[in-house]
Amino acid sequence: MLYRTKLFSAPRLLLRECARFMSESSEAAAVPERKYIPRRSLMYVPGNDERKINKIPQLVASGADCICLDCEDGVAINKKEEARNSIRKILDEQSLDFGKSECTVRINGVGSGFEQIDMETILSGPNLPSSVHLPKVENLDHLEWFAAELNSVIASNAAQKIGLILFIETAEGLLNIKEICRRAQELSDDSFFVPEAIVFGSDDFAADIGATRTKLSTELFYARQAVVTAAKAFRMQAIDCVYIDYKDLEGLEKQSLEGAGFGFTGKQVIHPGQIGIVQQAFSPPEHRIQWATQLIKEFEEHQEAGAGAFVFRGQMIDMPTVKQAKNVLQLIAKDS
Amino acid sequence: MLYRTKLFSAPRLLLRECARFMSESSEAAAVPERKYIPRRSLMYVPGNDERKINKIPQLVASGADCICLDCEDGVAINKKEEARNSIRKILDEQSLDFGKSECTVRINGVGSGFEQIDMETILSGPNLPSSVHLPKVENLDHLEWFAAELNSVIASNAAQKIGLILFIETAEGLLNIKEICRRAQELSDDSFFVPEAIVFGSDDFAADIGATRTKLSTELFYARQAVVTAAKAFRMQAIDCVYIDYKDLEGLEKQSLEGAGFGFTGKQVIHPGQIGIVQQAFSPPEHRIQWATQLIKEFEEHQEAGAGAFVFRGQMIDMPTVKQAKNVLQLIAKDS
Amino acid sequence: MLYRTKLFSAPRLLLRECARFMSESSEAAAVPERKYIPRRSLMYVPGNDERKINKIPQLVASGADCICLDCEDGVAINKKEEARNSIRKILDEQSLDFGKSECTVRINGVGSGFEQIDMETILSGPNLPSSVHLPKVENLDHLEWFAAELNSVIASNAAQKIGLILFIETAEGLLNIKEICRRAQELSDDSFFVPEAIVFGSDDFAADIGATRTKLSTELFYARQAVVTAAKAFRMQAIDCVYIDYKDLEGLEKQSLEGAGFGFTGKQVIHPGQIGIVQQAFSPPEHRIQWATQLIKEFEEHQEAGAGAFVFRGQMIDMPTVKQAKNVLQLIAKDS
Repeated sequence: MLYRTKLFSAPRLLLRECARFMSESSEAAAVPERKYIPRRSLMYVPGNDERKINKIPQLVASGADCICLDCEDGVAINKKEEARNSIRKILDEQSLDFGKSECTVRINGVGSGFEQIDMETILSGPNLPSSVHLPKVENLDHLEWFAAELNSVIASNAAQKIGLILFIETAEGLLNIKEICRRAQELSDDSFFVPEAIVFGSDDFAADIGATRTKLSTELFYARQAVVTAAKAFRMQAIDCVYIDYKDLEGLEKQSLEGAGFGFTGKQVIHPGQIGIVQQAFSPPEHRIQWATQLIKEFEEHQEAGAGAFVFRGQMIDMPTVKQAKNVLQLIAKDS
Repeated sequence: MLYRTKLFSAPRLLLRECARFMSESSEAAAVPERKYIPRRSLMYVPGNDERKINKIPQLVASGADCICLDCEDGVAINKKEEARNSIRKILDEQSLDFGKSECTVRINGVGSGFEQIDMETILSGPNLPSSVHLPKVENLDHLEWFAAELNSVIASNAAQKIGLILFIETAEGLLNIKEICRRAQELSDDSFFVPEAIVFGSDDFAADIGATRTKLSTELFYARQAVVTAAKAFRMQAIDCVYIDYKDLEGLEKQSLEGAGFGFTGKQVIHPGQIGIVQQAFSPPEHRIQWATQLIKEFEEHQEAGAGAFVFRGQMIDMPTVKQAKNVLQLIAKDS
Repeated sequence: MLYRTKLFSAPRLLLRECARFMSESSEAAAVPERKYIPRRSLMYVPGNDERKINKIPQLVASGADCICLDCEDGVAINKKEEARNSIRKILDEQSLDFGKSECTVRINGVGSGFEQIDMETILSGPNLPSSVHLPKVENLDHLEWFAAELNSVIASNAAQKIGLILFIETAEGLLNIKEICRRAQELSDDSFFVPEAIVFGSDDFAADIGATRTKLSTELFYARQAVVTAAKAFRMQAIDCVYIDYKDLEGLEKQSLEGAGFGFTGKQVIHPGQIGIVQQAFSPPEHRIQWATQLIKEFEEHQEAGAGAFVFRGQMIDMPTVKQAKNVLQLIAKDS
């Protein structure tokens, strides 16, 4: 307790030093690194909608990688409190079985007036969501606020860091995406989160720039590829736009494959019927699985032999590539 | 007079303080805020072309939102002086009725050698154009020059601020667009202009990057969507490329609707026959008008009741959204 | 020798001053400016592949503008040394006739572990390649390293500056492209290179962002146009992606013309059979040649008459435009 008081009254430079000290101390070493969590389909469930919450087992059975309990857009203004408290209860009681699905929470955006009470309610208890979604990130202030607030509400004995899933869904956010990603990574050194994914909030973005959404999404070409480029430069996941017409499964599959082809790693879904197609579209093809399996096998052999440099199929293999291959295998292990 | 001498000999920091003081003083309070001026079609008229100037009443009758008296690309080098003086005469005599159309002037770009005399001639008289178009903005120096020059030529008793319409039409300009927009907004605090629109100068841009213009404009995809994103991030209008083949009205309509769908708010035109189609393509659809009408009605009711927070159709309404709705209504009022 | 020791132990500011002094001294003035070198087709030849090296005369006969002796992706890890030494021998012996083709070398990227020995071997002898290709440029450190290393290996009596051909082929590189181009130009003031071209490394880029390559290359739209914009803003050449399916000449021609239409000035080729089509697609059309011929003729007349300002076809002509026209004529002269 003393520690936390001191930490947050100290000026910024001291804060950094404290954090660095912490991360070198044995206490911090006890915080395990987060393993790779695929988010091929990301399904929202309004926190106050009991009927939909009761259907979560179906979402889990459909294999949805990520189930997001929502405080934001899916919840009307006068239901915010109800949603927040209901999510707290779900986390506390742990009566819902999320199986292999990740359980996350989307809070309201910075400046909405709900963000602080959302953070305090959702993140102060003993049971935490795996990740938090922060919508409408537009500038560095939004991130600074989040990092400071998270550090003040999360118990310093958190079992592990929380994943941060950022939303880029305004023109300003897109214009600042490089600085936002870089700052998120810097802040994560001193905070209890790891920036893991960027979600492209297509419909809010289109509304913000005054664009009209079409099925081909030509109007979002620039934004979608800019989001992928920034996310990948910082080794984060990139999660693509919603396909609104949930009855058109053929159109959904086409757009999912297009997104995967652009380099997106997953897609938002708004209906349970969309989960299977989306999960499939963002799963690695057979040749990719073989590549990963063999690469990791040879990597481990070289490790055992104590060899440093490592050539695979004619290419020098660096650690990011090993990590990519490991991610593929973790993903496969999850599915089997 | 004393005031102006002091203002502009002061170092930059003092200048800012002066400006802030001014804007808080009762004198400055007398400068009315500019209301929203739609620029769905932007039609150029070479300042020296008497025949075309005489046809301005037809442009007004066609409903062109913005009629731009041109000193730049539409005027040959040896006609620059004639164009400039002719525009000065039009502004002085006020014999031409611009009706509901905005009367603006495009000066020559910074570095052309004509920019200073253009500014002095066009902006020093008692009658000013509503807005000035500044072509080929590439870097912050161009803006700094414009702001300093404007402050030195405009009488400090200007009835209201001048609109600034920037042109992005080179690779360098596009690469610096974020910094240009941000600096324009900063400079406007201390100067007699408000940055209101960005025009994408498609043909100069294509020439600058060595691209070949096609009807589908695939070669300009990136640039057009980058311009919309930057403009909207700074709440400015975005004005799309010219459709060169003025006889092909079907192609014009298609490209206009595409531009509107991308988020552009207007389009440059080069022939009176293009005005109607373009005005129509960038006008708000019926459902948008209803949305704005009802939102403003409820907003005013809440204002009267003294309520702060304000929910409309399930969404919290902030001031930018209220302003958007007001813009729609002003636009409709102009058309009726 | 004394000079060089002093140069690199001096702090950065002094370094700049030294360089400026050098460039003003008569010694530096003796270094001739590089003339424009077209690179419409850029063909790679692995430095260790004797069979392909023996076919270089055929590439020259096919009219390939740029023949690149490769140490990087075309060469297996265990053949790096062989490739490097073989290239050194080709440069030393000068037994191969490159005719009108440019002879360049691609070294391995910064961080590969091979970059320093590549630089020392390739650039320390009396006969230098015309240009060096630096792959996988991602940040300013890569450029700083290259500039410092080049200055330390190149004899200060180099006949002329070396061309630098940068590769943008990762998400991080694309995100930093503006800063990379700007820094390359700054560093060239103090170093023995001139940044002349950016190559878009399409397949490495696609792998880096996790995109899937398709024939239409929709997945690379954003990246390709971003590369053209940055290159042209800094007056550098932009060299487009490889067309992998070397048997599909129709597809090759289509993509070459698309690239040229986007503003690219050349294209990478991987098979001798691709050279002719690519050279043709990036050659100026007849009307462009006429424009350049007449412009330069009038420019020289004005120069002789001592006239400063210069109007051509109604447009004020600046020096970049004169240079563009001269480039077209040099290109034509090369072909005839």
